[in-house]
Amino acid sequence: MIQPEFELVLFGGLGDLASRKLLPALYFLQKDGRLGAGHIYLLTRQEIPADEFISRIKQALTKFLPKDALTEEDWLEFSQRLVCIRLDVTNLQQFNELKHSLADTNSNRAYYLATGSELYVPICQGLKQAGLINEHCKVVLEKPIGHDLESAEHINTAVKEYFEEKQIYRIDHYLGKETVQNLLVLRFANSIFEHQWNQKYIDHIQITISETLGVENRASFYDNVGAMRDMLQNHLLQLLCMTAMEPPAKLEADCIRDEKVKVLKALKPISGADISERVVCGQYDAGVSSGKPVPGYRNEPGVGDNSSTETFVAVKVEIENWRWAGVPFYLRTGKRLPERACEIVVTFKEIPYSFFPLLHKNTLANKLTFRLQPDEGIRLSLCEKRVGPGMNVRPMNLSLNPVNMRQIRVPEAYERLLHDVLTSNQTLFLRHDELLEAWRWIDPMLAFWKNEEQKPEPYTSGSWGPAAATLLLARDGRLWNEST
Amino acid sequence: MIQPEFELVLFGGLGDLASRKLLPALYFLQKDGRLGAGHIYLLTRQEIPADEFISRIKQALTKFLPKDALTEEDWLEFSQRLVCIRLDVTNLQQFNELKHSLADTNSNRAYYLATGSELYVPICQGLKQAGLINEHCKVVLEKPIGHDLESAEHINTAVKEYFEEKQIYRIDHYLGKETVQNLLVLRFANSIFEHQWNQKYIDHIQITISETLGVENRASFYDNVGAMRDMLQNHLLQLLCMTAMEPPAKLEADCIRDEKVKVLKALKPISGADISERVVCGQYDAGVSSGKPVPGYRNEPGVGDNSSTETFVAVKVEIENWRWAGVPFYLRTGKRLPERACEIVVTFKEIPYSFFPLLHKNTLANKLTFRLQPDEGIRLSLCEKRVGPGMNVRPMNLSLNPVNMRQIRVPEAYERLLHDVLTSNQTLFLRHDELLEAWRWIDPMLAFWKNEEQKPEPYTSGSWGPAAATLLLARDGRLWNEST
Repeated sequence: MIQPEFELVLFGGLGDLASRKLLPALYFLQKDGRLGAGHIYLLTRQEIPADEFISRIKQALTKFLPKDALTEEDWLEFSQRLVCIRLDVTNLQQFNELKHSLADTNSNRAYYLATGSELYVPICQGLKQAGLINEHCKVVLEKPIGHDLESAEHINTAVKEYFEEKQIYRIDHYLGKETVQNLLVLRFANSIFEHQWNQKYIDHIQITISETLGVENRASFYDNVGAMRDMLQNHLLQLLCMTAMEPPAKLEADCIRDEKVKVLKALKPISGADISERVVCGQYDAGVSSGKPVPGYRNEPGVGDNSSTETFVAVKVEIENWRWAGVPFYLRTGKRLPERACEIVVTFKEIPYSFFPLLHKNTLANKLTFRLQPDEGIRLSLCEKRVGPGMNVRPMNLSLNPVNMRQIRVPEAYERLLHDVLTSNQTLFLRHDELLEAWRWIDPMLAFWKNEEQKPEPYTSGSWGPAAATLLLARDGRLWNEST
Repeated sequence: MIQPEFELVLFGGLGDLASRKLLPALYFLQKDGRLGAGHIYLLTRQEIPADEFISRIKQALTKFLPKDALTEEDWLEFSQRLVCIRLDVTNLQQFNELKHSLADTNSNRAYYLATGSELYVPICQGLKQAGLINEHCKVVLEKPIGHDLESAEHINTAVKEYFEEKQIYRIDHYLGKETVQNLLVLRFANSIFEHQWNQKYIDHIQITISETLGVENRASFYDNVGAMRDMLQNHLLQLLCMTAMEPPAKLEADCIRDEKVKVLKALKPISGADISERVVCGQYDAGVSSGKPVPGYRNEPGVGDNSSTETFVAVKVEIENWRWAGVPFYLRTGKRLPERACEIVVTFKEIPYSFFPLLHKNTLANKLTFRLQPDEGIRLSLCEKRVGPGMNVRPMNLSLNPVNMRQIRVPEAYERLLHDVLTSNQTLFLRHDELLEAWRWIDPMLAFWKNEEQKPEPYTSGSWGPAAATLLLARDGRLWNEST
């Protein structure tokens, strides 16, 4: 059990991400004995009395931890780690004050920037000027980093003036999910899958991240971002990389990242006329979600009447290499869809010939499904004989034994990732070139949807997105996996 | 729903097989609406008053049907089908009397010979002489047919003087099991398995039929037979054929039987010095079974002090063709083993290289298990990431969803097979050449164990057989699958 000593300096320390994800993850790390001695500095622009600050954190943990997970004993230990520091990042003087609050400049210190990416450079400047950066420090950057290739390059270059690449942890929390890491093991520790993991045996792959929620109270952020930047450029492409990459030379950060970059570089560019052929953008209209009527996106608080921000995107992606030529990867994500799910579905080619009665085309190909949320799990869809007379074929699923599933709590992605930061393991973090390649690939799409005044196609809340998304696959004689 | 009208004439009508298996199967066929109008003639040497006969049948059904399966209404209908006829098969005159008891010589009539195979020819002679054989009749032969190649050829030739091949149903009830038929569907309706169903991807295959029971009250039969004739020559080789055969041209009886015969012809002969290398015979000694002390085989009632009958056999089988060259099939069966099970376990080759920590050799190859008894099911053994920190690999099983398992009663093998007889479907029955090829292959082993006065190796009741069986695999660097 590695228990790193540490100092974690959290910019945006009272923000949404900290309350919902980071502090609960740190709490569980401590509870599981995986956190050494160390303090968590929560930085905020607000002036808050110490006791109010502590009670706010306790409230947040009570709300966001699973029921009964917060015990008085653990909370006492955890609260003693917490330090609230007022800091306006535009005020250089306050960084000097920060310096005096921190313990030891030679400690294992991580700066976690849970802020908008426009603040990354000012924060680095502030830290530098106050002498708060040395070779023991790390910096964690939340996505999205930039809003297009140019801005991402700018931020990347600027941050690298202050930190070396090996000190920079660009987070994509989907990589912290158990099932995503399991994908590596399932592929490279099992002969029966990897032997067939190529264009000879696989028909196509679908990756879906669907949400039932709308924009909620995040319109001021989301309306400038949209689904392509918020989900496609990072999560969906990262899942694609993990699914499609070649076996790395070793199980080490740079070996794995080398392979992911190779996949990104092999993505067939989508530009010009291709875009309307292969990309579908949608925006949710009024409809019904979880049994309740909900407003359309443009009627959400904080969204303009004419917003052309996409809340849904579906793309047909091709990878130009020997393994994947001719195997489409269909990616999609959207808000206000009928269910919350994240799934990678690998559909194998159909059998070349069947002598069984009642094998319906298109419905009975073998499928391997990796489910990342809401529950994590694996499912292999096969055909079997229908019990009883005759030799009729019916679909059947082999599932991860549910007994196994319930034995242990599956750690949240941020637990894994925070522990990796504190123990200096960059495997599950994005390298600069991965980030830039991903932006390079979606940049033409972003430009097209912005410049051409293309409007996203409306879709009814509670449906699986616009009709054009169905057509995107129907043209290839395929269907989305919708009954999960 | 096919409801054949029929006449079933059952020789050995009050015997063990009829009570335990055949009558319960017929009862369920009727209950499920799969039996048309027709009578079941139970032939017995004994003189039994009609009312006693009926109450004996009812007692047997009560004992051998699942709890609550016997209802008064169904029993009333069923009992009206039953006719008890006294017949001594050595008395030709009594066949003439039988003729008058039967309804209509042009009906769909099946003679089911649930007797020792030495009576098959006399019964055929009696039927013929009484004019009871025409082209509408079928004959069902129970295994074992003969006790070696010569006697099997003799019986086969003799029976074929009275019935044509298309009228002869040689039963191996293992072929009636759902999972065995499912094996065909799983292989030929799923691309992911059949693509790897060969020597490139499969390391070896194990087929086990283990019993916890000893010889019970069947010593007079079993002591002349032994495990090779009782299980290896039929059930184990049939399971091997279903596992190893090429895809048939069509899903028709002769196409499938053609492929099974091809497998039997490709079995590498085991003779001479090979026998002691590749065959292990054992006989159970005293020990513990299901928590109780049990006597050794030679102390069972009806078994001689010097009996050299084998109650356990294990064989390393090779198939000489392109698909299977170099892939051993290890077959074994035995009485007084630690659990009752029938499993086919396909072990795939290990991955060529692993970069994960803690992958132990030999324990983590992918396996596909077909379980035939006591419960039927399929299990795919894989490796997955151990939940939590690091990238440690652990074994994991994908199982047939237990929800599916419980939805319907799985029919007993004899229900399937009796219905197939009554509807003239020979797919799951052995053709003459299959039978003879199987005998041809085991004949040298039978002769060796008989002539050389070889004694089977003793093993403790409740163990997995003699040490030599372990060694049989250990020499190849392998282990039996014992934790099922």
